Amino acid sequence: MLDMPGRGKARFITFEGGEGVGKSTQARRLVDNLAKVSIGAVRTREPGGTPRAEAIRSFILQGRPESWGAGAEAVLFAAARLDHVKQLVAPSLESGKWVVSDRFHDSTRAYQGLTGGVEEKLIAALEVLALDGRKPDLTFVLDMDPALAFERVRERAPEEALVATGDRFEKEELDWHQRLREAFLAIARDNPERCVVIPANQGAEALEQEIWDTITRRYPETVAGPGA
Amino acid sequence: MLDMPGRGKARFITFEGGEGVGKSTQARRLVDNLAKVSIGAVRTREPGGTPRAEAIRSFILQGRPESWGAGAEAVLFAAARLDHVKQLVAPSLESGKWVVSDRFHDSTRAYQGLTGGVEEKLIAALEVLALDGRKPDLTFVLDMDPALAFERVRERAPEEALVATGDRFEKEELDWHQRLREAFLAIARDNPERCVVIPANQGAEALEQEIWDTITRRYPETVAGPGA
Repeated sequence: MLDMPGRGKARFITFEGGEGVGKSTQARRLVDNLAKVSIGAVRTREPGGTPRAEAIRSFILQGRPESWGAGAEAVLFAAARLDHVKQLVAPSLESGKWVVSDRFHDSTRAYQGLTGGVEEKLIAALEVLALDGRKPDLTFVLDMDPALAFERVRERAPEEALVATGDRFEKEELDWHQRLREAFLAIARDNPERCVVIPANQGAEALEQEIWDTITRRYPETVAGPGA
Repeated sequence: MLDMPGRGKARFITFEGGEGVGKSTQARRLVDNLAKVSIGAVRTREPGGTPRAEAIRSFILQGRPESWGAGAEAVLFAAARLDHVKQLVAPSLESGKWVVSDRFHDSTRAYQGLTGGVEEKLIAALEVLALDGRKPDLTFVLDMDPALAFERVRERAPEEALVATGDRFEKEELDWHQRLREAFLAIARDNPERCVVIPANQGAEALEQEIWDTITRRYPETVAGPGA
């Protein structure tokens, strides 16, 4: 039996963007596609991903109506992220597994920073702490007109328990989502090496293909796995 | 009936220092002494002081053996502090009540920053967030040789449930407490207008008197209340 060929270093991929743009679906499909080329990948999400981080998630979301405020949210999410990085992201990458996360640090910058008003100094200091040196290698920013994303969230609402996402979507205004969209695009502009903006207003299959094409272009080791 | 004389603005007083130096006792006595000159004061503590902040406190202390790490503690305490400031400290001061807190932001700087290694930039950014513009007017740094404080903690251990304090004291080394003591003294040196270092190796009554003398010197409105 041949040794498995060297697959290069494990990559850390994140999906970012507003609500209803298809991040969860695409994260799942990417992990499936990686498995097809024999690359093991861990799918995770934020806020959450580890028991303590999930505890912080529910701790924050619980209090919705009497909100914590953007500043407290930013620091609580940073505590959750640090746990997530130390307990799951870093050990997975070190064991050779790729990590695919539905949201990561850019969401804090977009939600609490750029649209929430938490000052840049704090956001930057929290990133240094929470990332613990583990920046994503590649970030897909799924971009869509909020009016369309809103329709999608409404459509799936009966099937899925939307937790805070749906409520939030219902309550907050479309122009807030427009600002959020601009925030993610600004982050992508500031990080051109890491971020790839993908128009999300296309079918899930087409979106999946575009994401996979980006992966294979960027990481040749994904073109043909040992089982291909 | 005469109007109550103007009592000046409500003051925000904090007690800081290592474990076993008498902060809780002196905070309680200061509130009692203020009451004697008809100044209403709210006694509180950190971490905690409000339901959500107390929830974060138990959330952190729960996890002791598998510690969060100083960085996560610093951000979680900042979230708790912001809630404490917004829900209790600021409204109390605005209603004319003094606030006396057993620990406040200097403890984060001393424990997580100066001795815990969390970087200054993050500590400073968290202070801006969490204080929400409410810096203490006066901070008593109760200073004692850690070897003596250690004895005191041991002596009271059977009577009081020491929560994390006692365990921590038992487990950690004396030289760590020496560094903590230096951290509080450094904070006092950096903030000479706000901080008053009081030698805590004296009887509780003598300590109480020295604290009260400082209060009356600094705030003439405490010299004679309407009932004096």
